Amino acid sequence: MSNNRIGEVTVIPLGGLGEIGKNMMVVEANNEILIVDAGVKFPEDELYGVDLVIPDISYLVKNKERIKGIVLTHGHEDHIGALPYVLKDIDAPVYGTKLTLGLLSGKLKSHNMLADTYLRHVYPGHSVEIGSFKVEFIRVNHSIADSCALAIHTPAGPLVYASDFKFDQTPIDGKMADIHKLAELGDEGVLALFSDSTNVEREGFTMSEREVGKTIEDSFVEATQKIFVASFASNIHRIQQVFDAAVKYDRKVALSGRSMINNVHIALELGYLNIPEGLLIDLKDINKLPDHKVVLLMTGSQGERMAALTRMARGDHHQISVEKGDTIVVSATAIPGNAKAVGRTINQLFKRGANVIYEALSGVHVSGHASQEELKLMLNLTRPKYFFPVHGEYRHLHLHAKLAQGVGIPKENIFIPDLGDRVTLSQDRGYINGSVQAGRVLIDGLGIGDVGSVVLRDRRLLSENGILMVVVTINKEGKVLAGPDIISRGFVYIRESGELINDATKQVEKALSECEDNNVTEWSTLKSKIRSALDSFLYNRIKRRPMILPIIMEV
Amino acid sequence: MSNNRIGEVTVIPLGGLGEIGKNMMVVEANNEILIVDAGVKFPEDELYGVDLVIPDISYLVKNKERIKGIVLTHGHEDHIGALPYVLKDIDAPVYGTKLTLGLLSGKLKSHNMLADTYLRHVYPGHSVEIGSFKVEFIRVNHSIADSCALAIHTPAGPLVYASDFKFDQTPIDGKMADIHKLAELGDEGVLALFSDSTNVEREGFTMSEREVGKTIEDSFVEATQKIFVASFASNIHRIQQVFDAAVKYDRKVALSGRSMINNVHIALELGYLNIPEGLLIDLKDINKLPDHKVVLLMTGSQGERMAALTRMARGDHHQISVEKGDTIVVSATAIPGNAKAVGRTINQLFKRGANVIYEALSGVHVSGHASQEELKLMLNLTRPKYFFPVHGEYRHLHLHAKLAQGVGIPKENIFIPDLGDRVTLSQDRGYINGSVQAGRVLIDGLGIGDVGSVVLRDRRLLSENGILMVVVTINKEGKVLAGPDIISRGFVYIRESGELINDATKQVEKALSECEDNNVTEWSTLKSKIRSALDSFLYNRIKRRPMILPIIMEV
Repeated sequence: MSNNRIGEVTVIPLGGLGEIGKNMMVVEANNEILIVDAGVKFPEDELYGVDLVIPDISYLVKNKERIKGIVLTHGHEDHIGALPYVLKDIDAPVYGTKLTLGLLSGKLKSHNMLADTYLRHVYPGHSVEIGSFKVEFIRVNHSIADSCALAIHTPAGPLVYASDFKFDQTPIDGKMADIHKLAELGDEGVLALFSDSTNVEREGFTMSEREVGKTIEDSFVEATQKIFVASFASNIHRIQQVFDAAVKYDRKVALSGRSMINNVHIALELGYLNIPEGLLIDLKDINKLPDHKVVLLMTGSQGERMAALTRMARGDHHQISVEKGDTIVVSATAIPGNAKAVGRTINQLFKRGANVIYEALSGVHVSGHASQEELKLMLNLTRPKYFFPVHGEYRHLHLHAKLAQGVGIPKENIFIPDLGDRVTLSQDRGYINGSVQAGRVLIDGLGIGDVGSVVLRDRRLLSENGILMVVVTINKEGKVLAGPDIISRGFVYIRESGELINDATKQVEKALSECEDNNVTEWSTLKSKIRSALDSFLYNRIKRRPMILPIIMEV
Repeated sequence: MSNNRIGEVTVIPLGGLGEIGKNMMVVEANNEILIVDAGVKFPEDELYGVDLVIPDISYLVKNKERIKGIVLTHGHEDHIGALPYVLKDIDAPVYGTKLTLGLLSGKLKSHNMLADTYLRHVYPGHSVEIGSFKVEFIRVNHSIADSCALAIHTPAGPLVYASDFKFDQTPIDGKMADIHKLAELGDEGVLALFSDSTNVEREGFTMSEREVGKTIEDSFVEATQKIFVASFASNIHRIQQVFDAAVKYDRKVALSGRSMINNVHIALELGYLNIPEGLLIDLKDINKLPDHKVVLLMTGSQGERMAALTRMARGDHHQISVEKGDTIVVSATAIPGNAKAVGRTINQLFKRGANVIYEALSGVHVSGHASQEELKLMLNLTRPKYFFPVHGEYRHLHLHAKLAQGVGIPKENIFIPDLGDRVTLSQDRGYINGSVQAGRVLIDGLGIGDVGSVVLRDRRLLSENGILMVVVTINKEGKVLAGPDIISRGFVYIRESGELINDATKQVEKALSECEDNNVTEWSTLKSKIRSALDSFLYNRIKRRPMILPIIMEV
């Protein structure tokens, strides 16, 4: 039950604050709930084996009758990726622009959920009534087409959810962020602004996407053989620029990588890409054309193990090989954590004799996120009463809060809530009003949430030192009938360490015979004797501590 | 047996080419061997649980009678860290500058090897005869004091091994790289140059270390409470600048972190740090002084789990806590792979209310490696006949080779050998002359080299999906006496997944009873039946593939 009074609105961040990814926010007013975005986060290294991380939506499940709708700002994974999981537990109509819903549809289809989901598309510049909320979709620029900020009109006043954005003064599709609408809202009075903190560490303005086009063109001018371009599959404007260069320099384009093929086809179908008839050719046909007539557009800009470019660099792509003299454009930045994998791919490509054009050497990528001056502009356009820096780790939120103070937002009107905090706002005051369950849910295979901290701890221990199993079969009297046998995985080569394992087995035999002498038959005692005998033996001998797992079978 | 003729020299890189770290090179002439540096590399993520990586020195062990000495260019881990392992297998005198040998001594002491090693210190600007080699130590600037390039005089002419360097026109200790000596060598004729490729992607000149001092001073001027500075423990010039600022602004300095304490004391003892009496205080005494009178200088600039700053950020340092309003200077860059850990530490420090000054926001760090213009300067000073880009991944070596062509080195005189390649050089020609065993040796605990690729593969598999053991005890006739029992680690919580494990157990029982019906008693068949039954069951049910380990005990 909501406890909002008239003239109040409550916002609850469920993701995206104190972290990069899994963006999700709840807005409550008039006893109704509106959800903004539902994204995934890609697991950090310490989440061994986890595929995806999504927000904990227990609160929404408990209050599902009050949910009126889900509004999406753009089609990136960190804004829509959790929907297939969220929509299993809650049922609500989903609103977004055409491309956003197009990308979502592909995702829902692969989860067999498309038919059961009510999708409603909204044009940028238009608004829609969802329960008692009126939501305006306001065009912004970002590294994916059809991105919008939202103005959510509530009884306490309008919230502007800027989401991820930049102000590109020379956008590829000619459609600039709707600064007039943002200014108008600012004039009328915005209750609160929620704005992207990703690039708050960067001074000045983020460069226009158009600048990348120039570098891409330069590389086309100089190329004499095949050109390979790796990019984020969702960056439709970047892809358009590659197509434009191909047309200008008379090359055909083949696509490689599942997400690249899917996204280009969705964008083409919905009219977000403009290409002449016959520009695209099939990957298997590229060898029919001379080298200087083809471009390959593909995934793999992050060094992902199984992506097209990564496999070509390794030399194990079944259709395409990189030859001496080919040109490779890696048109992306390495996301933190991927730098080593990207570096490895570039090394391998240079080794094959290719001419590699990458970020460290040239302007072959620009960010989709606003830098400091754009963040100030957003604040000055909307002139909010309250400000919430969102989408960032804590340092980003903190620096964005300081930046907002710099343009005149009083410190006490700036909120950096924890996930799950209920922040209640009115024209008179804003305050933290308790909290709800929030956090992360780990997805591993089809299992949702069954990878707990114990499992992750075990995976970490296993990855560092491996496991050593000691199996022994005893009879009811505790007499050893078979074993002890020691089996290891991820520890040391038995072949190379036969002596070590022999000596270890003797330690276990000694521990077991001591137990027999003292009439110890209790399994837990036997196990702990085995474990401690082995642990101290191995640590003294080779300074390692594998996981030790004694297994006793009784016949 | 060396096959060098008169007027020839052969060089063999054993590390540092195609990789960052474990730098080591072998020089052979007159049937004698000289070794240059012997460094470690820190393991990449895919080397699960490995502590250190060192070069494979099999070739040196086989030819140890011919080894005349080991010369060290500077005291960084990637140049001296492998010596405690190398000196176990080969016996040779070690030459280096005073600070380099000071740092090495600490290392040898902790391996109980100091007494058995012959160390001979050489002043920069001086030379030493090692067998028939004459080796000159030539001062260069780098992020550790007392760094030297080497001129190794051979029957074929002098080799200049530049090692890691930069040209700092305003060095902290007033001691500039000896450009006059390098110019003189160039005038006389250098056979080959071996030069640092680390920063070849960067344009221009690397900034002077002195610039960092200004930022450090600024942070001291503005600080009103405690100041914490985290830095690389080996960066003696950086440490001197922190001491200078402390003196100027009337603060005492306490040290924290084992390597910081060790290095400062070695550098003080050898005269590489100048501080007034009484500047250093004990860590436990800092609370006796007012906050605005203390500086803490510590390790942890890379977000290392157990380093001082990391623990303070987490709030589990037993002596020191970070308070609201304290100033933290992270005076280092995050090495690729550490960016996330460093980011996490900075987030936590901001959360504690500290004012954090770090690289993204200010000039609080400069590199110790030469940028493009300095690399060109080194080439133009030494004017080598042959050029070897060293110290870098393949892309760095490739770009450095191109840069050398740009200043006039003919392409055919530039070598990028693989590790182990024997490159024979004379005034007439340079060519690859076969190869010797080379590569990496992994150190895990006290075990050297017993962590092979199978063990690493198993650790990776274990870390991604965990392990599931199926234990069954049978009698000689193949009848099941106990089990099957399923035990898992790192897979799923049994408590949460009782049903899954029950159903899995039934699959195994079914597979076993089929075997019994068909009189299958061979263990390998039983195991493969168990494995395939479980594997397909688990993949269909939850799309996961843990490692499956059937264990059969016979009584």
